[in-house]
Amino acid sequence: MFSFVVDKFETHASAVLHISDLAVQRGYGIFDFFKIKGRHIFFLADHLDRFFHSAKIMKLAVPYSREQIKGFIFELIEKNALTESGIKMILTGGYSTDGYNPARSNLLMTQHPLTLPSADQIDNGVRIITHPYVKEFPEAKTINYSMGIWLLDNLKAAGAADVLYYEGEIVSEFPRCNVFIVTHDNVILTPARKVLHGVTRKNILKLTGAQYTIKEADITRDEVYQAREVFLTSTTKRILPVVRVDDRIISEGQPGPVTLGLLNELLRLEERDAV
Amino acid sequence: MFSFVVDKFETHASAVLHISDLAVQRGYGIFDFFKIKGRHIFFLADHLDRFFHSAKIMKLAVPYSREQIKGFIFELIEKNALTESGIKMILTGGYSTDGYNPARSNLLMTQHPLTLPSADQIDNGVRIITHPYVKEFPEAKTINYSMGIWLLDNLKAAGAADVLYYEGEIVSEFPRCNVFIVTHDNVILTPARKVLHGVTRKNILKLTGAQYTIKEADITRDEVYQAREVFLTSTTKRILPVVRVDDRIISEGQPGPVTLGLLNELLRLEERDAV
Repeated sequence: MFSFVVDKFETHASAVLHISDLAVQRGYGIFDFFKIKGRHIFFLADHLDRFFHSAKIMKLAVPYSREQIKGFIFELIEKNALTESGIKMILTGGYSTDGYNPARSNLLMTQHPLTLPSADQIDNGVRIITHPYVKEFPEAKTINYSMGIWLLDNLKAAGAADVLYYEGEIVSEFPRCNVFIVTHDNVILTPARKVLHGVTRKNILKLTGAQYTIKEADITRDEVYQAREVFLTSTTKRILPVVRVDDRIISEGQPGPVTLGLLNELLRLEERDAV
Repeated sequence: MFSFVVDKFETHASAVLHISDLAVQRGYGIFDFFKIKGRHIFFLADHLDRFFHSAKIMKLAVPYSREQIKGFIFELIEKNALTESGIKMILTGGYSTDGYNPARSNLLMTQHPLTLPSADQIDNGVRIITHPYVKEFPEAKTINYSMGIWLLDNLKAAGAADVLYYEGEIVSEFPRCNVFIVTHDNVILTPARKVLHGVTRKNILKLTGAQYTIKEADITRDEVYQAREVFLTSTTKRILPVVRVDDRIISEGQPGPVTLGLLNELLRLEERDAV
């Protein structure tokens, strides 16, 4: 397997960074992640847009043009020749001379076989917990997951698949996923503010235009507890039904029809994108 | 110059980490920093205590005993033979197999010549700005400095040396320093909650027991503006007078007597520690 590390391709085993890099010294960097099937990259334009947007928010200059980055991605895909995979692209604060001030950014790209949600997770839904927190730079996909990783023990103890952040009772997002609820009036809601603009979230907002009523809105934790359906979205997980939030059963403990309907529509959208 | 990287000493130029390390992937790690003069390490016990405390808060197992770590530190000092220096010791989430779950922690140690505050900064004081923020894990010295680094442009624009965080009008700390104020009743105050327990902060709390009245307390931003004196503390900076906070002049724009008195006492404490 090959990776791309600071201007060149390396075997993954040799993919190293000098420890002066600002990701190591100060956790400073952004990233993006996208899916690949054969040679097709799903929603590449959206992911590249967001990658440059995250870099801009965090004041990191990208040391390559968009076309150069696309070139590296395609070269990596050719070299590794995987069937179904994900590529993670990290941009760090670079080799800082004083361990604090950013330097020329370092670009890293790694490709891995993809782990999609299990049939069990889709058929039976997952349980989630909630935790008071909001990301520091929600609209930038930064590498700072201190809270998400710190909470892994809590997930395990609760038998939960993920943790939904809230601040002042307004929910925002999961560490790596967006949240949606379906109200008892069959309106689909997703938090409007202080969230990462997920590519799957964006696709669902497009889908729902036709058949469903969809709104970006502030959602309280209590509205999540009372929702008819709850689901989470991400590039890897697509749409995953949530059947329990903390100690409240949602949707009678079964994936709901709106959630499953949207998942089918999303799968069709992916097929169309891959043509 | 030598560094210590994952179980062994390397020349600093060869000090690399595989990119699967959780610091690179997710900004997950803790660190500590201490001063060395010749072979003397200042307040080593305090720094080791805090290093292990930070690791514990962040649920990172330290893969060596305290005695082993001291051994590495002394070996590094022998190898590099610097006159006046600082050692930074980082503990990361390790080489994660899935880019999210921690593995065996990696220990990194680097030694650098020390940059102490300039005579100008001590004689004339520095200006600071304020910014609404509180660290996610204030009592752990994590590597996450996203906000501090993001604010570097603001410091530059304001001609400020540092930025004081506050949340709901209660001030906490600087990205890398603690804050103290002296009230018009000559009481010395430092924030009690949501701050890193700095070693210099701890030393000052000890000093002031004798001569001054000192309290750990909640301090509002307005109390900082109105203070008779303001100063910041850290291992590198020791005590640095603050003469302007945002657009408010403090202490008639000159370092105050309590600040300078404490700096002299701190220097004597360092001398005693070095014996």
